[in-house]
Amino acid sequence: MIAELISVGTELLMGQIVDTNSQWLSQQLSAMGIDVYYKETVGDNPKRMRDTIEMAIRRSDIVITTGGLGPTEDDITKETVAELMGEPLALHQESLDALERYFAGRGRPMADINRKQAMMPVNGITLPNHRGTAPGCIIEKDGKRAVVLPGPPSEMKHMFTTSVVPYLESISDSVLRSAYVRVAEIGESTVAEMLGELIHNQTNPTLATYASTGDVTVRITAKCKKGEDASAILDPMVQRVQEILGDNVYTVKGEPLPTVIAQLLTEHQKTLALAESCTGGMVTSMLVDVPGCSAFLKEGLVTYSNEAKARLLGVPMALIEEKGAVSQEVAHEMASRVRENAGADFGLAITGIAGPEGGTPEKPVGLVYIGVSSQSGTQVFQVNFSRNNRASNRLGAAQRALNLLRKKILADLT
Amino acid sequence: MIAELISVGTELLMGQIVDTNSQWLSQQLSAMGIDVYYKETVGDNPKRMRDTIEMAIRRSDIVITTGGLGPTEDDITKETVAELMGEPLALHQESLDALERYFAGRGRPMADINRKQAMMPVNGITLPNHRGTAPGCIIEKDGKRAVVLPGPPSEMKHMFTTSVVPYLESISDSVLRSAYVRVAEIGESTVAEMLGELIHNQTNPTLATYASTGDVTVRITAKCKKGEDASAILDPMVQRVQEILGDNVYTVKGEPLPTVIAQLLTEHQKTLALAESCTGGMVTSMLVDVPGCSAFLKEGLVTYSNEAKARLLGVPMALIEEKGAVSQEVAHEMASRVRENAGADFGLAITGIAGPEGGTPEKPVGLVYIGVSSQSGTQVFQVNFSRNNRASNRLGAAQRALNLLRKKILADLT
Repeated sequence: MIAELISVGTELLMGQIVDTNSQWLSQQLSAMGIDVYYKETVGDNPKRMRDTIEMAIRRSDIVITTGGLGPTEDDITKETVAELMGEPLALHQESLDALERYFAGRGRPMADINRKQAMMPVNGITLPNHRGTAPGCIIEKDGKRAVVLPGPPSEMKHMFTTSVVPYLESISDSVLRSAYVRVAEIGESTVAEMLGELIHNQTNPTLATYASTGDVTVRITAKCKKGEDASAILDPMVQRVQEILGDNVYTVKGEPLPTVIAQLLTEHQKTLALAESCTGGMVTSMLVDVPGCSAFLKEGLVTYSNEAKARLLGVPMALIEEKGAVSQEVAHEMASRVRENAGADFGLAITGIAGPEGGTPEKPVGLVYIGVSSQSGTQVFQVNFSRNNRASNRLGAAQRALNLLRKKILADLT
Repeated sequence: MIAELISVGTELLMGQIVDTNSQWLSQQLSAMGIDVYYKETVGDNPKRMRDTIEMAIRRSDIVITTGGLGPTEDDITKETVAELMGEPLALHQESLDALERYFAGRGRPMADINRKQAMMPVNGITLPNHRGTAPGCIIEKDGKRAVVLPGPPSEMKHMFTTSVVPYLESISDSVLRSAYVRVAEIGESTVAEMLGELIHNQTNPTLATYASTGDVTVRITAKCKKGEDASAILDPMVQRVQEILGDNVYTVKGEPLPTVIAQLLTEHQKTLALAESCTGGMVTSMLVDVPGCSAFLKEGLVTYSNEAKARLLGVPMALIEEKGAVSQEVAHEMASRVRENAGADFGLAITGIAGPEGGTPEKPVGLVYIGVSSQSGTQVFQVNFSRNNRASNRLGAAQRALNLLRKKILADLT
């Protein structure tokens, strides 16, 4: 089955917003074993939209549109798709009721123009919108299928997950289940190389790698007949991938690294204190993004200046002057002192040269020392990112620090 | 002049990476007064790529491709475009020399397959790649123009800026100059509404709004004949936009808000200390992302727990218990104490309920207090984001805090 994605919106053509919908949909469809051969973006121009959708219906089995379901005259995606599929629209009472409830819940009357959003294909499937106003729909005709979805990502994703996925499963005799293995410290090309044979010979389960900021996700998808147990196919492959990628795998369930660390610390009732120099609060902020972080987070100190390292942490100024603020010794002191001062179980410290200035031949831009401390001792790791990009050096240092902390916690627990 | 963008790559169709190139190119072309009517993504399949590029050449004046210039057999964008434009390829000695220098500089020999990257259109314009291996090219034929660019964003952007922009200017009798007005605290739809009349009646200069995380950019572009002074057209419009949007405009030169604050503090030799609760180090990290932040940043404290607020800042525990950690009074103490403890000129403090838990009827999720302190006094601002999204509440609080700090610094300086 071949799908084609059409994103509608002049603001996409102008570059005013990024089209994240089509990437997300590509991933979902790929995980369901549906290939995407083409993606297009068109504006609100009737003729160009019509031509694009017509061609897509001709050459693909499923056409999925996002956007252009608003109440104004410019919003013509649903009307264009319905016309091309030869399907009349009529007022859909249930959708109208939902629209009226939506506006009533916000204390304002529904404007007349919004009635247009409740005009739905007579023989199609109406998809309720639980996150906004415009319902979506599915129209089937002569073996072709058109799926019309709203543009706002939160509405589109919710509608796809709750309505379109069950629909696609209903027209298939198989079901799919995916595992998401996430790995730190190794780049996407290395991951792809390590899994080369598995990826090359994939049949069922299938594998794909996705790069996100700072780490890599491996999607593993098993397909089986309805009623069969997918885990019999899925689990052995998940285990093989884990074995190949080793202890940098931090989850097989898809959660981000800070969440994994938060769960580890909370579950074992351990606490953490941080001292950050070049990362400047980024690591602490990543952990604070996890709800419930108060259970384990004692405090975070951004000691960018030497004075702050001395005054807030008690690192001897003589040591900083002798060894330099970016040194094995200062990272060691930062990690152990922040832990002791805060009375925490774990201490994490980062000091490095983020660039673009401040590098020397001995200590180049991208050099970072990461200290992890607990009652079992303090270790310092040297990493050299050697990238001439302040933002990516800082992000790389933050991700590496979190993974080293995770390994330290696991080592202490066993 | 109508442009069409084609992104090449199976990894884009699979959703393995986001296509940021096409958004960036859309913005650049829009600023040059060139309309984009269609954007497509295709994989490495020869027939589908050929069909897509052929259609684009037929219906648009300029076709810009990104990606598919690698050394392998799969990489066929340049070959396909050249064939469709009826243009032979031949070995381009200069490009081959550059490739060999590139590999020599990295201490490894050039593989034979890389020679393919130096095959360039005989009558076309070769665009050198100063950031990677594959050169790009421009082919002109029968009033149509094809621009072939590499896929990696850093290579593509550099090539576009240094080679394609001058080319597009050379085929036009006019030049363009843009100003980027950035504004905090107001959402994109409000900005668009405030500028409604200007946007509606735009001719020269043109205006467009772009939403980014946390703030809005207004692009103002003036077009004039070569040799004329663009600022005579541009400057009055920049001033009008500033007047309409008021004191939330923080730059007309496009820099991000943390950079503007860093420049203000550095220029006036003022220093800053921060105490963050719900933002958890995010504000400090945004400032540390600016190179040279050591000139003004004394320290940042992440005092998420009540104990940290008391121990690190000296906020009386009785006050926290009486008024609550999220209160006007505690924000006041946090801001003034972090400033005094650090001996800084300015103190900034944020305490709030990021959610999803922790809200009450009196203090709902999204309630944030922001304290700004200097010798001239300490003010606390209450903001209610009332979004049920921890990440966006935290980002909103961080952006608002930075803008309130900016206003305080400006008020103190005048």
